Amino acid sequence: MSAPVETRDRYPHFLAIPTRWKDNDIYGHVNNVEYYSYFDTVICSYLIQSGGLDIHKGDVVGVAVETKCTYRRSVAFPDVIDAGLRVGKLGNSSVRYEIGLFRQGDAEIAAEGYFVHVFVTRGTQKPVPIPAGIRTALEKLVMA
Amino acid sequence: MSAPVETRDRYPHFLAIPTRWKDNDIYGHVNNVEYYSYFDTVICSYLIQSGGLDIHKGDVVGVAVETKCTYRRSVAFPDVIDAGLRVGKLGNSSVRYEIGLFRQGDAEIAAEGYFVHVFVTRGTQKPVPIPAGIRTALEKLVMA
Amino acid sequence: MSAPVETRDRYPHFLAIPTRWKDNDIYGHVNNVEYYSYFDTVICSYLIQSGGLDIHKGDVVGVAVETKCTYRRSVAFPDVIDAGLRVGKLGNSSVRYEIGLFRQGDAEIAAEGYFVHVFVTRGTQKPVPIPAGIRTALEKLVMA
Amino acid sequence: MSAPVETRDRYPHFLAIPTRWKDNDIYGHVNNVEYYSYFDTVICSYLIQSGGLDIHKGDVVGVAVETKCTYRRSVAFPDVIDAGLRVGKLGNSSVRYEIGLFRQGDAEIAAEGYFVHVFVTRGTQKPVPIPAGIRTALEKLVMA
Repeated sequence: MSAPVETRDRYPHFLAIPTRWKDNDIYGHVNNVEYYSYFDTVICSYLIQSGGLDIHKGDVVGVAVETKCTYRRSVAFPDVIDAGLRVGKLGNSSVRYEIGLFRQGDAEIAAEGYFVHVFVTRGTQKPVPIPAGIRTALEKLVMA
Repeated sequence: MSAPVETRDRYPHFLAIPTRWKDNDIYGHVNNVEYYSYFDTVICSYLIQSGGLDIHKGDVVGVAVETKCTYRRSVAFPDVIDAGLRVGKLGNSSVRYEIGLFRQGDAEIAAEGYFVHVFVTRGTQKPVPIPAGIRTALEKLVMA
Repeated sequence: MSAPVETRDRYPHFLAIPTRWKDNDIYGHVNNVEYYSYFDTVICSYLIQSGGLDIHKGDVVGVAVETKCTYRRSVAFPDVIDAGLRVGKLGNSSVRYEIGLFRQGDAEIAAEGYFVHVFVTRGTQKPVPIPAGIRTALEKLVMA
Repeated sequence: MSAPVETRDRYPHFLAIPTRWKDNDIYGHVNNVEYYSYFDTVICSYLIQSGGLDIHKGDVVGVAVETKCTYRRSVAFPDVIDAGLRVGKLGNSSVRYEIGLFRQGDAEIAAEGYFVHVFVTRGTQKPVPIPAGIRTALEKLVMA
């Protein structure tokens, strides 16, 4: 049995991310690498704007430990990407985000993947509990 | 006499470009390189959407011959950039675009610069007259 | 039982990839996204230089269908990365590359992951058998 | 009278920068933006390795105030770029670097440009005299 196909209603938060000219590679489609930039842009925007993460001076930072992407349909500049975000697993120090990328106007998903963050102190790089403000924001993205 | 300070009303066309997480460099501001990506994104979006440029199969392509940027105020993720565009000089085969970048909500300019395109045939890379549809679109961006 | 730790001798091919200033993100380390650029750089360099892939005019192109990366130790500009490459699975139309990234001078791995390519015709985007020259090159990277 | 054509002997310092897969844009050549990444990579490598700049904790940081590039010949992945560096003007707080990019194996220049840094304190962002170690390193790159 294959995994269910992800649909827009499976992502409680969205950010519109316009593609850029240089996202296209020599084959005329967005390069595989750039999808991960859409991933960390929707994630970090949410952490800053909804969770109060201070990326400049905060004591706690998120460190990527694992990321994965499955590519289903190509996208190309000047498409706008709707980046959907949910939380798949919320641990004590870590969180697994699940992301779906849709071309604006399309129902079918273009790519899906996940991204695991561990929160650490900026100085020692040791894991710490997820700060309360961020945890509250992340809880809102856990699907029933 | 120094050059006049550029203001929003000096740009007849704007595109909103959200910054991305990885645009920030180690000093916490958008890296100097990325400004040029905002330049070619506002330019090429306009050429495609208003001028009918076909970047995938068209016979004519624009080649960059000179670019310059002056940085006045730093910007940082997650700022949104309003990229202003005008045409400073419209030649037979070439065009000089002038770009102003403003942080959304700011009146003061963050960076300004120019970008010179020469239009060439995709095959021979020889200069050709700017195609009519593109020329019409570019004429709309020439300031009085 | 956890997966074995990958070591340099598990990769039959290496490419040295110097980091760039803008690879560093606001936290002072190479951004998670950029690791995938090291992946597709070592892969495509090998396909071009050892397999004869013509990225400009060839009838066959490689399309990314799935990529994954596990981050174990941070790296930072101006480190040089030794990108190790092997072939984990060689199918009729597809190949799974396995990549290990090591900071030059380090024995311990910094990151490991995989990348799955499907070869398709440039025009129709339909899967085709891997061209003979590329297959011969890839067979050299299959580990016993 | 046009400017003299820049040649390799006009640059006292060189860094080899291999191109990456995603440097190529849809037209099959390195995107105009990426040239500036070669600029700041050769500059910052030199400041760190010859001038002792500490980008992680140093009190003084370099801020870009103006950059320019003239494109003369296209380059493409997997070319290696020899990035030449000299100092055109060394002020009290600022420095103008002049950069020439050559495809490895080519005598003719591919692109040339400049980059102006102002050194400021990390905290206040106020200009400060260039630190002694960096100044000594930069003096070595001033051409007679």
